[in-house]
Amino acid sequence: MLFPRAILKPRLKRRVFNGHPWVYDNEIDTFPECEDGSLVDLFTSSGQFVGRGYYNSRSTISIRLLTRKYENIDEDFFVRKIQKAFALRSKYSETSAYRLIFGESDGLPGLVVDRYSNYFVMQISTLGMSLFRESILSALIKLFNPKGIYEKSEGAFLKLEGIPQVSEWLYGSGPTLIPFKMNDIQFLADLMGQKTGFFLDQRCNARFLSRFASEKRVLDVFSYTGNFALHLLKGGAHHATLLDQSERALEVAKEVSRLNGLPDKISVIKGNAFDFLRNLNPGDYDLIIIDPPALVKNAKYTEKAIAAYKELNLRAIRALKEGLLATSSCTQAIREDAWLGSIHRAFNDSKKIGLQLFSGSQPFDHPVSSAVFETNYLKFRAFYIRKISDI
Amino acid sequence: MLFPRAILKPRLKRRVFNGHPWVYDNEIDTFPECEDGSLVDLFTSSGQFVGRGYYNSRSTISIRLLTRKYENIDEDFFVRKIQKAFALRSKYSETSAYRLIFGESDGLPGLVVDRYSNYFVMQISTLGMSLFRESILSALIKLFNPKGIYEKSEGAFLKLEGIPQVSEWLYGSGPTLIPFKMNDIQFLADLMGQKTGFFLDQRCNARFLSRFASEKRVLDVFSYTGNFALHLLKGGAHHATLLDQSERALEVAKEVSRLNGLPDKISVIKGNAFDFLRNLNPGDYDLIIIDPPALVKNAKYTEKAIAAYKELNLRAIRALKEGLLATSSCTQAIREDAWLGSIHRAFNDSKKIGLQLFSGSQPFDHPVSSAVFETNYLKFRAFYIRKISDI
Repeated sequence: MLFPRAILKPRLKRRVFNGHPWVYDNEIDTFPECEDGSLVDLFTSSGQFVGRGYYNSRSTISIRLLTRKYENIDEDFFVRKIQKAFALRSKYSETSAYRLIFGESDGLPGLVVDRYSNYFVMQISTLGMSLFRESILSALIKLFNPKGIYEKSEGAFLKLEGIPQVSEWLYGSGPTLIPFKMNDIQFLADLMGQKTGFFLDQRCNARFLSRFASEKRVLDVFSYTGNFALHLLKGGAHHATLLDQSERALEVAKEVSRLNGLPDKISVIKGNAFDFLRNLNPGDYDLIIIDPPALVKNAKYTEKAIAAYKELNLRAIRALKEGLLATSSCTQAIREDAWLGSIHRAFNDSKKIGLQLFSGSQPFDHPVSSAVFETNYLKFRAFYIRKISDI
Repeated sequence: MLFPRAILKPRLKRRVFNGHPWVYDNEIDTFPECEDGSLVDLFTSSGQFVGRGYYNSRSTISIRLLTRKYENIDEDFFVRKIQKAFALRSKYSETSAYRLIFGESDGLPGLVVDRYSNYFVMQISTLGMSLFRESILSALIKLFNPKGIYEKSEGAFLKLEGIPQVSEWLYGSGPTLIPFKMNDIQFLADLMGQKTGFFLDQRCNARFLSRFASEKRVLDVFSYTGNFALHLLKGGAHHATLLDQSERALEVAKEVSRLNGLPDKISVIKGNAFDFLRNLNPGDYDLIIIDPPALVKNAKYTEKAIAAYKELNLRAIRALKEGLLATSSCTQAIREDAWLGSIHRAFNDSKKIGLQLFSGSQPFDHPVSSAVFETNYLKFRAFYIRKISDI
């Protein structure tokens, strides 16, 4: 089967040929004649086939490629792609919870699927991918015989793509708080919460950090449902204080601590991170985690975001005597160098230095693709804090 | 006690005030009147005390600070510094082998001490530090009651500092191949080998990589005495081929494999990495490790080194079908972005992409100091390789 043709301008940068699936509107010479969301075939100006993908005239990313072959994009296609992604995960995973499909890195732009035990939570973020909802669903059912598949496609960007929000069980059913075990800790993915319900991407960083937890009083800032705090308590920390703006996230965190037999080990505070950190006394905590949400969605506001990272880390560093700062950034819009620079300025301003104990990024089930720098988003560092005068 | 005064130029960059211990010759207004290697006190142009360190007119780094306080630099000083460094290691270490002193990061520029079980191997790289050899030795003996302390100060740069090479037991004695256990594997540090005898800095990366080792045929390029290969065999790899230029390193690797009951699992090849990789058939191995020595010591030759990284990785990528590439750079002279760029060009040239399974750096006993970017040297990545046509 052939599809409407899109033709690239001559003399383009090599990005698309080197494996990147996105084609921007200003890279296209001849646009396809078709409706938004349709499949199109992409050719070079000299007539060479590049690949097949879906088109959206409303997006600056006009085309996202799904394959470099003349192949049908149908249920079998999704079965093959998901099998390939699953082969990587099942070979290496130490847990029953992982990201099964990580969009562009797995050759499926616009799709994320997280697995929690035998429940699957999918996120669709593009019009083109949304038209394959039924094929994806059938493929997941065929491959995994799941108890339930929930779609949790939310966010303002869906409007720009021209698709509605979806938050419902598409297949089977399950609890709103999906239980799963990870690193020998019982957790809950909250279908009323953020993203797919849990941040699986920090599980390796949290596990590593737990090595440094012994006897510590922990402050988990932007705690959500307590991933870091629970790892640290399991690692021997005395007590964890969770700070978040969401009452619901904190209630779930309390339920998680009960499930793990640690209800007396956590306190929760609903509040603003900037305000709370400013009012701390130095030494109130031994280990502070700063794991903010993406402080910027748009490259236009990176300076503001970098200033916010600096301020958050500065306040945390000031609140620590000798102690540990664990800090993270989860947006690809801020490059690692810029983010680290903001932390270094925070060290300088507080007349302290940080000895880096650990540097982390994304786990293997959220693989960064060498061809798609936008898949690189998670940065994590743990520092042991010292005064410059005590170096 | 007061020492000869050195006075900084006015309006300097903040580097030294922000915790960096190095003072370059072009930053000094008034040089101290003293012999090379002497202790000096450093002041700002307005007369503020900055710190105390040692001077060497032969180095472009004229002064390296040892403290920001008026304190005596004597045996007690070294006891305090080593205790502080030990507190960090003993709290977090999972092994009896670790870097006890990591130069600038532990406030002791010019000194490295690695611990293998109860043997210590020290490296002195500056004239100033060498004059404290006896104090360091006494401090180590007092704190650890070691079986032996060996000094292994080698390398062409010692001549520039004006000090002789030293390779001898300074205290007690021990075998030339020092046995130690790490990650449940028996290893040997070779006092006739490189650096302090073993590369402890890759132990966390090697352990993590071993998770991805099942059933693999492994090629360990620049293997030295087989750190990666042994971790991978313990992780379930079928067979490992070690490639190195050093006959001795390969003999030690064979001895290590015997100690671990795996003598039939390794083959060794003495040879040149570039040549060997070029002559491989695609699919000969499932996992290739590229862990070259510092391909550049001098910032003048970074372009050449980056070309060499690209070439090594390109040849490894071409030799893999779908498989794993584990690749590293161990020199601070090459920044991470430049090194990653060379690997990305290798992916592009071979029409493949890499899905990053793991990103590693230095373990906590080789801490990067936020104040001293030169302490950041180790870069490590593991990629799952795919053809662009199969994305």
